[in-house]
Amino acid sequence: MRKPRLMTPGPAMVPEDVLLELARPVIHHRSDEAKQVIVEVAEGLKEVFQTQNDVMILTSSGTGAMEAAVVNTVPKGAKALVLNAGHFAARWANICKVYGVNVVTVDTEWGQPVDPDKVAAALKEHPDAVAVFGTLSETSTGTGHPIEAIGRVVAQTPALFVVDGISGVGAMECHPDKWGIDILCAGSQKALMLPPGLAFISVSSKGWAQIDSFEAPAFYFNLKAARTKAHEFDTPYTPAHTLILALRTSLRRIRAEGIANVWKRHKAMSEACQAGVKALGLELFSASPAEGLTAFRVPEGLKDSQIRGRMTERFGVATVGGQAKLKGKIVRIGHMGYTDELDVVSALAALEMTLAELGVDVEPGAAVAAAQRVFMSQTATAGK
Amino acid sequence: MRKPRLMTPGPAMVPEDVLLELARPVIHHRSDEAKQVIVEVAEGLKEVFQTQNDVMILTSSGTGAMEAAVVNTVPKGAKALVLNAGHFAARWANICKVYGVNVVTVDTEWGQPVDPDKVAAALKEHPDAVAVFGTLSETSTGTGHPIEAIGRVVAQTPALFVVDGISGVGAMECHPDKWGIDILCAGSQKALMLPPGLAFISVSSKGWAQIDSFEAPAFYFNLKAARTKAHEFDTPYTPAHTLILALRTSLRRIRAEGIANVWKRHKAMSEACQAGVKALGLELFSASPAEGLTAFRVPEGLKDSQIRGRMTERFGVATVGGQAKLKGKIVRIGHMGYTDELDVVSALAALEMTLAELGVDVEPGAAVAAAQRVFMSQTATAGK
Repeated sequence: MRKPRLMTPGPAMVPEDVLLELARPVIHHRSDEAKQVIVEVAEGLKEVFQTQNDVMILTSSGTGAMEAAVVNTVPKGAKALVLNAGHFAARWANICKVYGVNVVTVDTEWGQPVDPDKVAAALKEHPDAVAVFGTLSETSTGTGHPIEAIGRVVAQTPALFVVDGISGVGAMECHPDKWGIDILCAGSQKALMLPPGLAFISVSSKGWAQIDSFEAPAFYFNLKAARTKAHEFDTPYTPAHTLILALRTSLRRIRAEGIANVWKRHKAMSEACQAGVKALGLELFSASPAEGLTAFRVPEGLKDSQIRGRMTERFGVATVGGQAKLKGKIVRIGHMGYTDELDVVSALAALEMTLAELGVDVEPGAAVAAAQRVFMSQTATAGK
Repeated sequence: MRKPRLMTPGPAMVPEDVLLELARPVIHHRSDEAKQVIVEVAEGLKEVFQTQNDVMILTSSGTGAMEAAVVNTVPKGAKALVLNAGHFAARWANICKVYGVNVVTVDTEWGQPVDPDKVAAALKEHPDAVAVFGTLSETSTGTGHPIEAIGRVVAQTPALFVVDGISGVGAMECHPDKWGIDILCAGSQKALMLPPGLAFISVSSKGWAQIDSFEAPAFYFNLKAARTKAHEFDTPYTPAHTLILALRTSLRRIRAEGIANVWKRHKAMSEACQAGVKALGLELFSASPAEGLTAFRVPEGLKDSQIRGRMTERFGVATVGGQAKLKGKIVRIGHMGYTDELDVVSALAALEMTLAELGVDVEPGAAVAAAQRVFMSQTATAGK
């Protein structure tokens, strides 16, 4: 027997009580009962997003929210900066191109954090940029970007700051209203502890002013329509209401734990996973690791599929490899949402045993011990 | 105790074994296991759609598939005909307008079927129309349109025939490949017996030729990207995989029943519901009723909310009222997907008792008896 442990950086594991909500009979999405669910999740989403602005619900992948963010803010032919530092950051540029946006990329080596000074310089050079598209947690490289510092830079300009928080929101501390984030996107299948199928998007008043200034070429992803319906605790089209019902339960869990504690748990899991990986002599890929996942380089002489395949086959631990130009070069372990300290310990133990089997000279228990030390130091701090 | 009976024309009821699939732990959408699920549902969808073409899966409402159908086929400024005969047909025109399509509407009174001769005349007058947008089952009026005859007309022209089959596919006989339907859209929450959250779209070779002739201004709803991934039994972005898993089970149910029998069941339920409604002295709204729902006019002196409210409160039977200009004027009873003869009998019995309570002079049992006669005549025919 192998117990499945979905340690991929999204989708992540879903709590049993949330899964059981999904098995409840469907209700009509325009009923009072359905509306009451949306009233509650609207409040809960504001708490997770840490915003006073509305958080709108879209039935789509996170990519749908990214497309909504682009098409509703940047008119055709207008200029936008894309903080291009990974596969998902590049998606911002790809979406912009489809809509005829004049894209200027601010390029950063994959695995490095975006430098706020470079953003400031780019904005100086392109004062006509309507928006700056960035990423809180770049899932393809496992990098957390200094969104607070970048936000401070963008806030001083007329440009909007639009952030892909798909694998970041709920895993990494983020205060859009204080940090100058105008639009923040998230997906259901990451720290929000749901299956994929819903996306979320918040918009600041600066964001709405821009959105209201022109007619966006969008119907399904039209944010004006979404806003009107959100004010009625409704959605413009038939939503994936079963997922919204389940969202209510996952948001209740987050509220019970407290969002600050949720962030702290992710930070601890992230530090522990990094410590464990380093204790095995492996090299972290990112110079500034995100808190929802850990990416490490595949050791010389091994294939990522050997490591990942054996971890799944022998121990049921699912991870992912690299994307695009990182294909075959890194392994990514997710630790977000419904994941706890012992899940991280388990994944490291599986990695350790797998590497030993593959002939790598690892000291048994080293990774686990390194992770444990991180967790114990956290407890010690908490006890003071 | 009231047992909930979701007799709305979408979402419709979901079988227990399908609901339980939704409660299964999430798997990674790029895993072999996930791919195997898509291999099976791709086959099953072709059977339900009765097409040899690929049926692509989108994570969105049915409206997302409609938007994909518009934006991928009609370039900005090009002309399209919309067979405007209800609230959802009007949505075709609304989507077209967002994308700068030159819309010509062929208007039909709500509740009447579209006249194929009028379509032929319109195509003669507008030989430059790139596409004709129609509806198999107009959910807002409960009308089934003569799609086969219209398809024959459109097939003789260079225009594509694009059909909203959201509440039609799986409930009404439809043969896109034989009938000249180039693009057919469906949603998960109707006859496919799932919660909302997935949309499906098939494209003919004539359709692909048009799609391949220009660059559509779409990223998330780009059908070329969807086609490429469909050929790999994959999806371009993270799909609502839990719903796809559940879809496998609902498609197995449809295969076990046989699609011809599924259509027959819907036809019988539709005829029985119409007979029951008429036996109560109520007036059907549509001159050509669709097979997945029955719409009747609210009797003089009553409010739709009285009838619908009491049916739900006392008997747990959920129905819907009218939309847009039919608000307050009709009641719609859905009988699609996971709905059987006795569900129709139950809804009619609830309606009968509700009307009696509200002071309408109805003969107790008349509606139920009328429905039973329809069902018994079907059995008699089947026995011969």
